[in-house]
Amino acid sequence: MSKRNLTLLTDLYELTMMQGYYKEKDMNETAVFDMFFRSNPNKNAYSICAGLAQVIDYINNLHFDNEDIAYLKSTGLFKEAFLEYLKSFKFTGDIYAIPEGSLIFPKEPVVKVIAPLMQAQLVETAILNIINHQSLIATKAARVVHSARGDKVLEFGLRRAQGPDAGIYGARAAVIGGCAATSNVLAGQLFNIPVSGTHAHSWIMSFPDELSAFRAYAKLYPNSCTLLVDTYDTLESGVPNAIKVFSEMKASGMKLQNYGIRLDSGDLAYLSKKARIILDDAGFEDAFISASNDLDEYLIDSLKQQGAKIHLWGVGTSMITSRDCPAFGGVYKLAAIYDKNQCAFVPKIKISENTEKVTNPGNKKIYRIYHKDNHKIIADLICLEDEIVDINEELVLFDPNETWKKTMLFPGSYTVKEILVPVFKKGKCIYDSPAVMDIQAYCRQELDTLWDESKRLAYPHKIHVDLSQKLWNMRVDLLSKY
Amino acid sequence: MSKRNLTLLTDLYELTMMQGYYKEKDMNETAVFDMFFRSNPNKNAYSICAGLAQVIDYINNLHFDNEDIAYLKSTGLFKEAFLEYLKSFKFTGDIYAIPEGSLIFPKEPVVKVIAPLMQAQLVETAILNIINHQSLIATKAARVVHSARGDKVLEFGLRRAQGPDAGIYGARAAVIGGCAATSNVLAGQLFNIPVSGTHAHSWIMSFPDELSAFRAYAKLYPNSCTLLVDTYDTLESGVPNAIKVFSEMKASGMKLQNYGIRLDSGDLAYLSKKARIILDDAGFEDAFISASNDLDEYLIDSLKQQGAKIHLWGVGTSMITSRDCPAFGGVYKLAAIYDKNQCAFVPKIKISENTEKVTNPGNKKIYRIYHKDNHKIIADLICLEDEIVDINEELVLFDPNETWKKTMLFPGSYTVKEILVPVFKKGKCIYDSPAVMDIQAYCRQELDTLWDESKRLAYPHKIHVDLSQKLWNMRVDLLSKY
Repeated sequence: MSKRNLTLLTDLYELTMMQGYYKEKDMNETAVFDMFFRSNPNKNAYSICAGLAQVIDYINNLHFDNEDIAYLKSTGLFKEAFLEYLKSFKFTGDIYAIPEGSLIFPKEPVVKVIAPLMQAQLVETAILNIINHQSLIATKAARVVHSARGDKVLEFGLRRAQGPDAGIYGARAAVIGGCAATSNVLAGQLFNIPVSGTHAHSWIMSFPDELSAFRAYAKLYPNSCTLLVDTYDTLESGVPNAIKVFSEMKASGMKLQNYGIRLDSGDLAYLSKKARIILDDAGFEDAFISASNDLDEYLIDSLKQQGAKIHLWGVGTSMITSRDCPAFGGVYKLAAIYDKNQCAFVPKIKISENTEKVTNPGNKKIYRIYHKDNHKIIADLICLEDEIVDINEELVLFDPNETWKKTMLFPGSYTVKEILVPVFKKGKCIYDSPAVMDIQAYCRQELDTLWDESKRLAYPHKIHVDLSQKLWNMRVDLLSKY
Repeated sequence: MSKRNLTLLTDLYELTMMQGYYKEKDMNETAVFDMFFRSNPNKNAYSICAGLAQVIDYINNLHFDNEDIAYLKSTGLFKEAFLEYLKSFKFTGDIYAIPEGSLIFPKEPVVKVIAPLMQAQLVETAILNIINHQSLIATKAARVVHSARGDKVLEFGLRRAQGPDAGIYGARAAVIGGCAATSNVLAGQLFNIPVSGTHAHSWIMSFPDELSAFRAYAKLYPNSCTLLVDTYDTLESGVPNAIKVFSEMKASGMKLQNYGIRLDSGDLAYLSKKARIILDDAGFEDAFISASNDLDEYLIDSLKQQGAKIHLWGVGTSMITSRDCPAFGGVYKLAAIYDKNQCAFVPKIKISENTEKVTNPGNKKIYRIYHKDNHKIIADLICLEDEIVDINEELVLFDPNETWKKTMLFPGSYTVKEILVPVFKKGKCIYDSPAVMDIQAYCRQELDTLWDESKRLAYPHKIHVDLSQKLWNMRVDLLSKY
């Protein structure tokens, strides 16, 4: 993404509004926009944020080429003065974000943009596109990896991804969410993440018979020899032929390691148990059994419960598209506008008949609150930017909707962390994105801050996201004004 | 996509297999691979193919850069001789495809690659990725457009698309499927398709009040003035303020055209009917009412049935992700290998316990068969490459599974068209991709070849895809061999 000019990757209305701000308002008026989401995908109790590195690339590259200007002119919607202004357009604002691989929860700002109104408006669509996509896949991957109970999960979805980027950045996000490797070579090259893969049915079919195909493969890749055993008949042909080849390798004095079979069709529980017995009886107890074929977290969980003898899972379509919930519902809403006369941000609120859709006004920050003893999350607390939580004081949390539900935290019983970090200051990036494998390790730590009850696949225990008293008051005041 | 090197956009196993073919087989052995799919998405009776122009770009650009070679070397999987060979790798084969915007049906080759085995293997993943994605969205869009019964549908999904490409090529595919325009400016620039958009809630919220926001917008865009009326209260505030502004425009002597309101929340049936009455009573009978808010083909169909007064539909998440079916199940299977000794293609078949997954062997072509009188499709007939259907002869079609079900077509009662066209010959592209709006027009003609019963949203009438007697015999012979 770093080489592509994605400046026009925006909805037309961002540009028509920009021209409006340019002509009808003080174009330097500073606004605060929050990117947040309203509910976790897949009825999960948490989400994993991802995509910030690509947002940084996008912002750093933001500029209107001559051909962009010419194109905008050709639409007939834009005046010369505005197009002239766009020629020297650059992003000069501040951006705060929750680091990639972090747990994120509904209603809290994942990205906060503080910038001149028209700049903040332009970047809305691309920020949403990038963060929505990668957070969706990272969250799905975390669920799939959780269902595999410590086994490795491989991302195999490129051919079913929604276009090249969905494959490339989807693989990145899947690795952040916990996948051990991807089949996607370009993603491996771009992000320095492990790549994995063996052969397809076409390899087997291109040889006169299965045995010679297996032999040829084993000769070439003796140290990573996974044989696909289901082209003709898994138990009658595939597994016996694989054992023949493994035996030949052994007989030739080779030390077998990192070898095994892959099942890609049929009843994976039954076939894996049978194959395990046949392999063990032949003395190949350390041959692994991997499986693929339209897997998702529910199928893996069920296979685990059935005692399937599979310890390596290749997951494609369901993970790369987040099939049961293919969109992350991130939105980007105006939260405040700076008033020069008042020298302060004036909070803004979006009203809706649907209470769930009413926004949180003001320039905000987020404290994550942990149990001091076990470092599990108690809640997230959204505050106004000037508020400070002092861990030496008592902290009262209350449910923002059912306000009588209160929790009192005593000094010394909790720790806190501010989770929005500065990424851009006055248009300059001041944040170093970690390597993807480091983000993965961080994500694993993050998942450790959840109780198991919040990680289960169905009806997980929800994490509270509360508002400070000051923010809650501001919200109620604004609501009652309308 | 034309400027990007997507050569490594492939699964690792394509490359490990390539090295295998390179070392263990005659690397110039020619293979036939078919890209086809097993069932239509969304329980539809048809699919629309799209993405060929991007496949052409991909094939034309196929080459391994020095940095690609260096990366592959770093994996430790590839030998020097093979890496050296990759340096001068190019595609030298033939590709046939069904043109974009065409109706396509399960089991028939949408793309056919005839090339040296290793070349045909490399391109598998990218071809699947591109065709699967765009065909998925074009098909979904055709359903959505059908549900709108002649009203215009606008593609608004960029922010929820699965990454930049999903937004860009998804918009392209949605327009092929019948959308009148997209909000995605980059897609507009790249493909010369209409762009559309007005303003967001943030525009309204950035002004002291709704009325001044409307006035400012109308002043700037008098000829495309769509006012978003649901920021505060649709019927009490939004619509009356819009009418105030329309009246002021009229009073100033302006001839109002292409103007109206947009509803983005609440009960769209109720609100649109009420708003229509209020607008009509104020003398703005020609003001249009557009709507958005998580629409899909079922919601639009229901709103139409309820008599909603909406004639312009903005569709986002559900269309750009094909939410109820986010993957098109295209696969790519070996169908034949050329045998120099026999001077002929030897058919190959993939066996499966699941009969649905058994492939059609051989080098094939497809005839589409139409009723002569009304040009509606009777069936598709998959034949071997050397077969010819002569419309002056009787044609007997039979169901390939329930072979006693036969249809006899008399000479003069039907017409035929071969639907796979040559795209590459010996590595050279010989096909000119039409402009996207021309593909859209072609797609509309294609949809006219379906009976209405095959276009309905639920339980549509299926189209038959039959096999010629010769192909059917070949398939049964190969199956009984195993």
